[in-house]
Amino acid sequence: MTTDTTPISATDLEAGRRAHELDRAHVFHSWQAQALFQPMTVLAASGSYVWDGDGNRLIDLSSQLVNTNIGHQHPAVVAAIQEQAGRLCTVAPQHVNDARSEAARLITELTPAGLDRVFFTNGGADAVEHAIRMARLHTGRTKVLSAYRSYHGGTQLAVNVTGDPRRFANDYSAEGVVHFMPAYTYRSYFGSTTEEEETERALRHLEDLIVLEGPTNIAALILETIPGTAGIYLPPPGYLAGVRELTHRFGIVLIADEVMAGFGRSGAWFAFDHWDLEPDLVAFAKGVNSGYVPLGGVAIRDEIAATFDERAYPGGLTYSGHPLACAAAVATITAMREEGMVDNAARLGREVIGPRLREIAERHPSVGDVRGLGCFWAVELVKNRETREPLAPYGGSSPAMTELTAALRTGGVLPFVNFNRVHVVPPLNIPDDDLHAGLDVLDEALSVADAHVG
Amino acid sequence: MTTDTTPISATDLEAGRRAHELDRAHVFHSWQAQALFQPMTVLAASGSYVWDGDGNRLIDLSSQLVNTNIGHQHPAVVAAIQEQAGRLCTVAPQHVNDARSEAARLITELTPAGLDRVFFTNGGADAVEHAIRMARLHTGRTKVLSAYRSYHGGTQLAVNVTGDPRRFANDYSAEGVVHFMPAYTYRSYFGSTTEEEETERALRHLEDLIVLEGPTNIAALILETIPGTAGIYLPPPGYLAGVRELTHRFGIVLIADEVMAGFGRSGAWFAFDHWDLEPDLVAFAKGVNSGYVPLGGVAIRDEIAATFDERAYPGGLTYSGHPLACAAAVATITAMREEGMVDNAARLGREVIGPRLREIAERHPSVGDVRGLGCFWAVELVKNRETREPLAPYGGSSPAMTELTAALRTGGVLPFVNFNRVHVVPPLNIPDDDLHAGLDVLDEALSVADAHVG
Repeated sequence: MTTDTTPISATDLEAGRRAHELDRAHVFHSWQAQALFQPMTVLAASGSYVWDGDGNRLIDLSSQLVNTNIGHQHPAVVAAIQEQAGRLCTVAPQHVNDARSEAARLITELTPAGLDRVFFTNGGADAVEHAIRMARLHTGRTKVLSAYRSYHGGTQLAVNVTGDPRRFANDYSAEGVVHFMPAYTYRSYFGSTTEEEETERALRHLEDLIVLEGPTNIAALILETIPGTAGIYLPPPGYLAGVRELTHRFGIVLIADEVMAGFGRSGAWFAFDHWDLEPDLVAFAKGVNSGYVPLGGVAIRDEIAATFDERAYPGGLTYSGHPLACAAAVATITAMREEGMVDNAARLGREVIGPRLREIAERHPSVGDVRGLGCFWAVELVKNRETREPLAPYGGSSPAMTELTAALRTGGVLPFVNFNRVHVVPPLNIPDDDLHAGLDVLDEALSVADAHVG
Repeated sequence: MTTDTTPISATDLEAGRRAHELDRAHVFHSWQAQALFQPMTVLAASGSYVWDGDGNRLIDLSSQLVNTNIGHQHPAVVAAIQEQAGRLCTVAPQHVNDARSEAARLITELTPAGLDRVFFTNGGADAVEHAIRMARLHTGRTKVLSAYRSYHGGTQLAVNVTGDPRRFANDYSAEGVVHFMPAYTYRSYFGSTTEEEETERALRHLEDLIVLEGPTNIAALILETIPGTAGIYLPPPGYLAGVRELTHRFGIVLIADEVMAGFGRSGAWFAFDHWDLEPDLVAFAKGVNSGYVPLGGVAIRDEIAATFDERAYPGGLTYSGHPLACAAAVATITAMREEGMVDNAARLGREVIGPRLREIAERHPSVGDVRGLGCFWAVELVKNRETREPLAPYGGSSPAMTELTAALRTGGVLPFVNFNRVHVVPPLNIPDDDLHAGLDVLDEALSVADAHVG
């Protein structure tokens, strides 16, 4: 275990114990069985490190929920938040605010040509909800196509669009939502054995589904350019171009969910830049300001924005374009540019994470697949490389995964684990040495998983 | 017009012009027809004042969107945000954080006994969405009853529960949502002429609706304790007690939407305190930290929280219990207590706003009704006091209302206007002199409305 108690005092430890006690008494947590849940306390965080409730230093390979793309407590962004707080914390969304205007300008510099307007939300879920609303009202159609093995947010419409077990308990109404099988070469739904085959078959499936659902009923197709929590499975060559062609052909609005993949995570400003995809709406959050202040939004193609030029857009929220959140976005994007973080993420993926994970895969029989781009990688664990039987079932965990997670924590890494996968999703500016140290811990911890290989 | 350009420099004015230009080019606004919209620039704000793009000082009788309950830039809350930003901006929701723990503790000190846990969201809409989800999963039922003339938020489920024209364009799916007629004595749906009659008839209607919809199908009844944007119409005596009795009798979860009415707005910590109502779930946002950082949440009755003790709650969000937002809540609640803001709001309603509005009503034939509590008042404008024909139609505006709004702005007041109503919703700590000055402007501006009385 990496122990470095330098910034943690005895007072901090005591405050952490009190915080833990109050948490158990009064905080109701996301996605958890409240009484069974044993949360870790975070006493402090800096760069790529967090300190737990015992004062142990952990290397943050999770970026929390894959949002602190610039690491913790970036001084320029902290200063910008403090400066904006001293100047103007909040203003209603109907008034002009300089931080909001500048954030919108910067974001539209990064989006493809023709996406010149931004509707700000509080996070990714409401960004997705509003993107779907815009698509429905723009097209006059209702249905929404989305992929299985996806995540689009926790509010009711967003979670219904989601293709993940978190939808199951919330599936009261389809609201025109239809799921399709994604292209996922490692676990092909189409019996493909090559990427070319997967692209061809997945596109044929999608076209069939559109025709069978009625193209004139379908408002939008939403997809994570690179699905995140669902497994960081990259679209095979030609897949996204095919999706774009189908959506153009049938007049369907293409919504790219870049909430997790966007803002440098994949080694490009947006993941769709890797495949020259030009979506119609882009839902974003997380990396836009690393989650330092809650913020999300939708970048909007001009033709869709024009639908609401003379007709009121029937949606809004009190904190749309919140000055503090937007000031953090301006500072974040600026720092990312000045420090070359997006290029650095690409380099880390190409030169460090990719090569090391492939090497790790060779040594550990529990590793079925490694894949990713930039600082956005998944290690998929299996009981058997031939059958590809996952080390934990879809939607669940297993003793093997629980032991592996514990070994990572004990080794000094804060991991991101989902079902049978460990994701390697560090800040984009993690020092190479820290990244190597974290991967060393992963390498060692995987022997725990290997013991479960049948 | 009140002009005080002291804090506004020529540089500020130039920055404001640039912000306005960028806004028109890149910002997509809530609830607006984008090309027709002519937003005001806010260059600065302090206490109960804002400065517009020309450097004019306005008295903020809107509290923005009825959220800045402590006024603008309260120094203790600004300092707390700056301090927390320097310490720890963000952490994932699954980890324990001291600011979040303390905010939850403080909030549950204010809620009724037995509501001891808080699920934090980003705002009011997702608070409502999650409250409904909890009620559905707790009861195993689907339907949700909500009132016409209500507002519950902008995301899809929240806007479907809403009873306001903003729902119309978003009404793709009812998802078990059933609307009932609220008790609204001034415009009774039941032909009542007294409050007693209104209470009795509105409750009979509600009971009939429950029986006809099937009591065992109904998960929740949601209502704004005092409906806000829909008209600040107070529940007549006995109505809320009757709603509580019905929901108890039929095993229906009662959700109080206190997003606008809560945190001191009505001169009590929660509006339901005025009527000793004890709801099962309380949705809050806005006043909890005056919107200085986006935050909302749900306070949860223990029996409902216990449903998720050993079964995962299927909902969550990246920024749940965001440290910066929670630190702002801690500082806001503390400042409100130390400065007696809730009592002050009650006093302002009782001694200043109420008496002055009643006096104004006597002099201005366009005033059909004035009503409210604390710093939460509506002035309802009519063409004719006998027929009570509104000065603008439901869901729309009129030349009279547009002129009145302009006269308020020209007079130096930033107003909150909805359909045929002007709401007087200042910060709870507005100095008496400023409040009087604002009401003077309203008094004078109403002659514009009087000219439209037929």
